[in-house]
Amino acid sequence: MTYDTKPILDKATNASSPLDVRYTQDNIFMRLTKIIDSHKGGDPKSSYVAQLFHKGADEILKKVGEEAIEVVMAAKDAHLPHSRENLIKEVADLWFHSLIMLSYYGVKPNNVLAELQRREGLSGIEEKALRKSVRATE
Amino acid sequence: MTYDTKPILDKATNASSPLDVRYTQDNIFMRLTKIIDSHKGGDPKSSYVAQLFHKGADEILKKVGEEAIEVVMAAKDAHLPHSRENLIKEVADLWFHSLIMLSYYGVKPNNVLAELQRREGLSGIEEKALRKSVRATE
Amino acid sequence: MTYDTKPILDKATNASSPLDVRYTQDNIFMRLTKIIDSHKGGDPKSSYVAQLFHKGADEILKKVGEEAIEVVMAAKDAHLPHSRENLIKEVADLWFHSLIMLSYYGVKPNNVLAELQRREGLSGIEEKALRKSVRATE
Amino acid sequence: MTYDTKPILDKATNASSPLDVRYTQDNIFMRLTKIIDSHKGGDPKSSYVAQLFHKGADEILKKVGEEAIEVVMAAKDAHLPHSRENLIKEVADLWFHSLIMLSYYGVKPNNVLAELQRREGLSGIEEKALRKSVRATE
Repeated sequence: MTYDTKPILDKATNASSPLDVRYTQDNIFMRLTKIIDSHKGGDPKSSYVAQLFHKGADEILKKVGEEAIEVVMAAKDAHLPHSRENLIKEVADLWFHSLIMLSYYGVKPNNVLAELQRREGLSGIEEKALRKSVRATE
Repeated sequence: MTYDTKPILDKATNASSPLDVRYTQDNIFMRLTKIIDSHKGGDPKSSYVAQLFHKGADEILKKVGEEAIEVVMAAKDAHLPHSRENLIKEVADLWFHSLIMLSYYGVKPNNVLAELQRREGLSGIEEKALRKSVRATE
Repeated sequence: MTYDTKPILDKATNASSPLDVRYTQDNIFMRLTKIIDSHKGGDPKSSYVAQLFHKGADEILKKVGEEAIEVVMAAKDAHLPHSRENLIKEVADLWFHSLIMLSYYGVKPNNVLAELQRREGLSGIEEKALRKSVRATE
Repeated sequence: MTYDTKPILDKATNASSPLDVRYTQDNIFMRLTKIIDSHKGGDPKSSYVAQLFHKGADEILKKVGEEAIEVVMAAKDAHLPHSRENLIKEVADLWFHSLIMLSYYGVKPNNVLAELQRREGLSGIEEKALRKSVRATE
């Protein structure tokens, strides 16, 4: 197979870590991104995504924030019926709108996945996440 | 381990298939979830994730909300240097803390990916997302 | 004058601290709350507030979260024209929707103002706020 | 102290007056703002507010967003004991950090209160808020 993952990853991964074909391939995030990209500049009335792109960055960012709040609220309803299904749907909404935002700024989801793998590979997600958290609250 | 990544690469886009091997396999989200799961009930001092689990649901949810705000803020800095790298890191943080939350509630990331694929397959992400959005604002 | 502030404050204030007439009187927050209260149970089509009450708690809470994100975004635009006016409007929106939420849960804004005064009076806002912050991040 | 509250209580609702003495007086928000302002540029170790100012705009904005999420979470706990007290405390935190943010950007809380009164006076809060809401979701 002649597939070359390097350009996709934008050299974001640690060179000593073998590139992981499992997320550099055509995954669900990439497929959704292709669909999302195809709506850039489209008629706002033709689709929800085209409408969001037409409204611009602030509306897209607002949606990301709103979906995160809905995730939090769905999780707080864990004691209610259907809470599991609702949580899944809200996280799906959050990730989907993350993809719209990434598309808006021309960032591929694989860049984010590569960053996650980099943390996993370099120093363990634990240590990296902690370092980040400490920075935020110190 | 006899795990073979080939099916992931080759089975490709079989729309009629109810389950897509590309995301049901051991992907980066599942690998991170395994690491996260392994820290459940661990000594809070041993790792950031164990610490979050120890603090409980509210602290985890707060982190999801905070990371979403940091994503929004990073995106608003698009005109500044290093904004692209920062955005990638913040989205990685958001997705990572989403995974911690899902782990807390016993939901697999593949359940969320399946929901995203379901929308894509059933009615197009556009229509589904729109329906959801209309519901939220009507 | 026979006005008695005690019932308004729900005994939330420090008894040794003299009640502050300046916020127990009919202030802008209380006036808005009276208007908001008057829309409880009203025809959803008659007003925005009646509509929000009709939708219920989750929609009101979502609005509080959304308005906070809009405040953050407006503040991030501090380098743009009209940023000051926008920030003022967004904070007004946030406070206004806080009042709607308080009304929904039957809490008077004066209870919140009394809590703020209590912190100021008892131990200085600094110390109190710090204690809260430390608790949140420890 | 020679401060006389009478004007606050008596000048009452003069709709034709452009400025309402009830919120232009030395109220709790203004008193807190004076304390907050006094910590600008102070030693970060001396107080929580000085520490926040030292960290800069992004940390202050993050706190506003975080406090809003904590308000939403406290409200979702309405079925639990002490939920009312917690909600009051969280809204106090949200408003307090709003004041810190306003101070950072050199905006007086009375500017926000005046905006709220303007909406009340000009066209009713209902109509104005609705107009804003429609704009946000259209």
